[in-house]
Amino acid sequence: MNNLLLNVPLNRQDEQFEDLLLGGNFRVERIVSNGQSTPAGEWCDQSTDEWVLLLTGAARLSFEKSGQVYEMRPGDTVNIPAHQRHRVDWTDPNNATVWLAIHYEPREANEATK
Amino acid sequence: MNNLLLNVPLNRQDEQFEDLLLGGNFRVERIVSNGQSTPAGEWCDQSTDEWVLLLTGAARLSFEKSGQVYEMRPGDTVNIPAHQRHRVDWTDPNNATVWLAIHYEPREANEATK
Repeated sequence: MNNLLLNVPLNRQDEQFEDLLLGGNFRVERIVSNGQSTPAGEWCDQSTDEWVLLLTGAARLSFEKSGQVYEMRPGDTVNIPAHQRHRVDWTDPNNATVWLAIHYEPREANEATK
Repeated sequence: MNNLLLNVPLNRQDEQFEDLLLGGNFRVERIVSNGQSTPAGEWCDQSTDEWVLLLTGAARLSFEKSGQVYEMRPGDTVNIPAHQRHRVDWTDPNNATVWLAIHYEPREANEATK
């Protein structure tokens, strides 16, 4: 048994990434943020889909094209399709923000490559 | 955005299951328990691997072969390999227990069937 809310490293320099589960075409990761955000003016553009669940802390996630802004609190989930440019505008500087992220190939892509 | 800790149905009769994400060879599900447990004397024997994360509430999970018993609290994760007989002995009768479950084919199985 492992607890995702314990052994939360306090690191104001860098976010912490830890693989939890590796499947055939998906990867489950714990991410710990301590106030970090995407550098000003930058967007993240990923080649796989990512589903995120915020477990503790708080964060603001925004999308370039739609302009949607999500103020995420514990229990909140957002799906980020591949190549949908997004950024983490803000994470709580006073408390660790723990995320569960599932990186995966979308089902259609799997079907297409069979 | 969806919140896994809201809209938690109170149902003392049956556990509640909701698919959250469907990948090519995995499925992410929210399970809400309200005091339910595996019927006395029964074990669960599943054909796929299952990784569970307890989000809120409390539960006791035990395994037949190893005799291991896990008292699960928020943030705890346990991996349940396929055909490893297990049971939920107890879930908190006074508060909803919310689980995130990832059902998946293990990596070796994927490799083997390629």
